Amino acid sequence: MIPTLEWLPNGVNFLDQTKLPLEETYVLATDYNQVATVIRDMIVRGAPAIGVSAAMGVALGVSQSTATDIASLNAEVATISDTLAATRPTAVNLFWAIQRMRDRYNALAAANTPIPEIKAALIAEAQQMYDEDIAACKAMGAHGAELLPQEGTVLTHCNAGALATCGYGTALGVIRAAIERGHKIDVFADETRPYLQGARLTAWELLHDNIPTTVLCDNMAGALMRQGKIQAVIVGADRIAANGDTANKIGTYSVAVLAKEHGIPFYVAAPLSTIDPATPHGDGIPIEQRAATEVTHSNGKQMTPNGAAIQNPAFDVTPAKYITAIITEHGVLRAPYEQSIAQMAAEATTKRELTTA
Amino acid sequence: MIPTLEWLPNGVNFLDQTKLPLEETYVLATDYNQVATVIRDMIVRGAPAIGVSAAMGVALGVSQSTATDIASLNAEVATISDTLAATRPTAVNLFWAIQRMRDRYNALAAANTPIPEIKAALIAEAQQMYDEDIAACKAMGAHGAELLPQEGTVLTHCNAGALATCGYGTALGVIRAAIERGHKIDVFADETRPYLQGARLTAWELLHDNIPTTVLCDNMAGALMRQGKIQAVIVGADRIAANGDTANKIGTYSVAVLAKEHGIPFYVAAPLSTIDPATPHGDGIPIEQRAATEVTHSNGKQMTPNGAAIQNPAFDVTPAKYITAIITEHGVLRAPYEQSIAQMAAEATTKRELTTA
Repeated sequence: MIPTLEWLPNGVNFLDQTKLPLEETYVLATDYNQVATVIRDMIVRGAPAIGVSAAMGVALGVSQSTATDIASLNAEVATISDTLAATRPTAVNLFWAIQRMRDRYNALAAANTPIPEIKAALIAEAQQMYDEDIAACKAMGAHGAELLPQEGTVLTHCNAGALATCGYGTALGVIRAAIERGHKIDVFADETRPYLQGARLTAWELLHDNIPTTVLCDNMAGALMRQGKIQAVIVGADRIAANGDTANKIGTYSVAVLAKEHGIPFYVAAPLSTIDPATPHGDGIPIEQRAATEVTHSNGKQMTPNGAAIQNPAFDVTPAKYITAIITEHGVLRAPYEQSIAQMAAEATTKRELTTA
Repeated sequence: MIPTLEWLPNGVNFLDQTKLPLEETYVLATDYNQVATVIRDMIVRGAPAIGVSAAMGVALGVSQSTATDIASLNAEVATISDTLAATRPTAVNLFWAIQRMRDRYNALAAANTPIPEIKAALIAEAQQMYDEDIAACKAMGAHGAELLPQEGTVLTHCNAGALATCGYGTALGVIRAAIERGHKIDVFADETRPYLQGARLTAWELLHDNIPTTVLCDNMAGALMRQGKIQAVIVGADRIAANGDTANKIGTYSVAVLAKEHGIPFYVAAPLSTIDPATPHGDGIPIEQRAATEVTHSNGKQMTPNGAAIQNPAFDVTPAKYITAIITEHGVLRAPYEQSIAQMAAEATTKRELTTA
């Protein structure tokens, strides 16, 4: 089990992903502001992991409140939520998780629940989201495994693995599930410039599980596809619009176009919490621009001349037409995605209401 | 004028491209073995520059020979040529240039030319190839300039500039020529992993000439094309097969597929010496595999976990169908390339024979 993040009695403990693969060190966030910093600095990253981290940040912040009345606590919850929501703009799981915690809080507050009980309930809610995230990954694996070849090489981009979730992974979870079911799969991991999540994180966690992994530069995938060396592509997602357009790590769109050109299936694996019904199509997804130094500098050394302008969008949008299927914890979505997404969202809501009732 | 390489009385002087962009230092190769090392270690790189460097290596080796009879000198020429030919496998200009020097040598030797005169003639031949290379770049610029937009952004991959030639550049020469003719062109330079020729070399030499340049990670070009931010692509070539299939820096093929998907013209600029009539199609072009450490390490720090396999092909092949036009010093080639290449090669041979006669 890869310990991406964990709720501890004295805070939230994070595996420091900026130090992988050579150092396995941990950062303990002891208040919600520290959780926000951990998210902003990409000590934890990956849409599902960011979501649960933010939920734990809300639980941590509320549990440490000294408020003695609900009006004061309301104000604190708003501040805590806003701080955590301002960390990164693209992954919708962040906003979804914070909203879920606020909804839970609001229901408890409206029912005049005593503050100590509210605190305990919010901690339990965050821990439940952690468990649900792992269960969702396992369910994605079960639904998606048979889409991958019995034997072959699967390309992935960035890290949509145990390190991007509370465990098991989305895209890498589907690969793990296929291997557990007897498929013989080698993984090609795009190194994923500029932050090298593929080289550093995907390779690390797959080799940790003894899954054969080859790292390639992002610009090599096309040539390898042309040589018939890649049988399928699977990636995660940071936000999926209501029509299936998918924002994911920069470079995902190029991989999708290349897959289409070579007749290779291109799969997205993500929990329903990554689907954003409020965003009708991909052009409405905000794309985070990150610091130029991620591109210009490498291990502290400047690699570009002074005066060069820099592009550093953290994500791009892959239009739905390039996506063979979207694998969720509730099943596999196919085009037309407007309908399949809307239908699954409605069914999931009904199921949740039945369970809660 | 960017001093890529220069014949000096005491050897061949090379701008050390491994140290750019932050350090402008030079390496003086004082014998042909040192020239071979300079090519192998990529202190000089780029197909046309490699060709002239090898020619100068032959001239340097022969000029330093202590042979007093032609039989001994013949053997030395063979050793010198084999050493220089073994440095890098893909760029055909290397073999073309060495063969041209050998042809010149053989003609002189067959005519019983005295050894001191042979030495002087080979030095003159290498220097002429240097001058011809710059003239060819200028001619490519003249032929290709009007293919580029009056105003817009042109994407290039790797470095096909003054640093890849004896001066002015092939792909960047066409950009320079367009700007000299009044076009308003911004350049997007793919950083070009793993060796970063785009980030380090293309950005350096374009900014040296005050051409606005933006560096992007290789995986960003697709998203920028989709946003309408790129109007044309132009790249160099390491070897062009008789049917137009083009070997160039790894990642070129992906850019070509992306350009096609977005209806963006994709141009190759290369001298005729890059066209290899002996290779009928791209599958016959040998692709150099380089050391894994170029991918695994960054400024001395290991970025991948132990146990990860690595891909590091230095080049890929772009099939002719993706290439809008090939710009040479004799004019612009269009599909079907079998015919247009064969016709231009025949015309160029006739012209050369007429000039020599």
